[in-house]
Amino acid sequence: MQTWDAITSRRNVRSYTGQPISPEHLDQILEAGRRAPSSRNTQPWDFVLVTDRDQLQELSKVWVGAGHLASAAAAVALILGDDPEHARRAQFDLGQATMSMMIAAADLGIGSGHAGVGDQELAGQLLGLPADKTCAFLIAFGYPADRPLAPIKRPDRRPFDEVVHRGRW
Amino acid sequence: MQTWDAITSRRNVRSYTGQPISPEHLDQILEAGRRAPSSRNTQPWDFVLVTDRDQLQELSKVWVGAGHLASAAAAVALILGDDPEHARRAQFDLGQATMSMMIAAADLGIGSGHAGVGDQELAGQLLGLPADKTCAFLIAFGYPADRPLAPIKRPDRRPFDEVVHRGRW
Repeated sequence: MQTWDAITSRRNVRSYTGQPISPEHLDQILEAGRRAPSSRNTQPWDFVLVTDRDQLQELSKVWVGAGHLASAAAAVALILGDDPEHARRAQFDLGQATMSMMIAAADLGIGSGHAGVGDQELAGQLLGLPADKTCAFLIAFGYPADRPLAPIKRPDRRPFDEVVHRGRW
Repeated sequence: MQTWDAITSRRNVRSYTGQPISPEHLDQILEAGRRAPSSRNTQPWDFVLVTDRDQLQELSKVWVGAGHLASAAAAVALILGDDPEHARRAQFDLGQATMSMMIAAADLGIGSGHAGVGDQELAGQLLGLPADKTCAFLIAFGYPADRPLAPIKRPDRRPFDEVVHRGRW
């Protein structure tokens, strides 16, 4: 797919068909995340890929906004260490990695929807995390149940001329 | 350009030819940022586009790591309000918007390199920011002076199998 079509087709998808995602496509999505830039190239993340239905259903309980994981074809858990010095900057870096994976997914016709994590103890248990690691976000992936991804003409966003200032505020 | 080529061609570019970026391409990059997802669709950002050479040279002084702005064709300043409740989450959202703009730029053969902001007073003055706004990051854009963007075969990143865990940690 052309890049601009992938960027403009990406939308939050929270209901999925039962179709699995091929291992090659999952690896391509993860590779897009691995390549993302980060502060001083620290790459503060680890990614845990989950495709097991029972595990996805359990993971959907870690936050009230994570219910869509239960029907996803896969989820990628974004894992951070506990270095407080990197905590704030790591959020920006995780955002970059997330967007890279979401655009790579959209390029393959795969929808995505991310979720925060409320219950860290449950998430850590389900993912087998060491004590010094936390699950910062979960990104669900799957083929959209409602309609295929296609470029969105009028996205639900603030108007261009309100967001963009030229030269000065 | 195909999406995967844009994703794998993106790299930090900090030295630029003198070639300007067309207004249409700048708007396309900004549009990619405007469309980025954010927590509850809050879109906590404003973007200030700077193309004036003198202003870019002054902006390059807001941080020791912002020197490359002086020779950039353009810069986008990412502006946040002062709502502390949104501060942490906004970093993740800014990361998503940044990556979206960088991939959109790579698709056009345009390099990018972001910078933090140390001297908020100077940045605010140069950008004409209201007192309740801060400049969170600056992203420089321009055509690479060294070599054109092309897919990178072996990125300087941790190995795939170290970053990616399957099923559990």
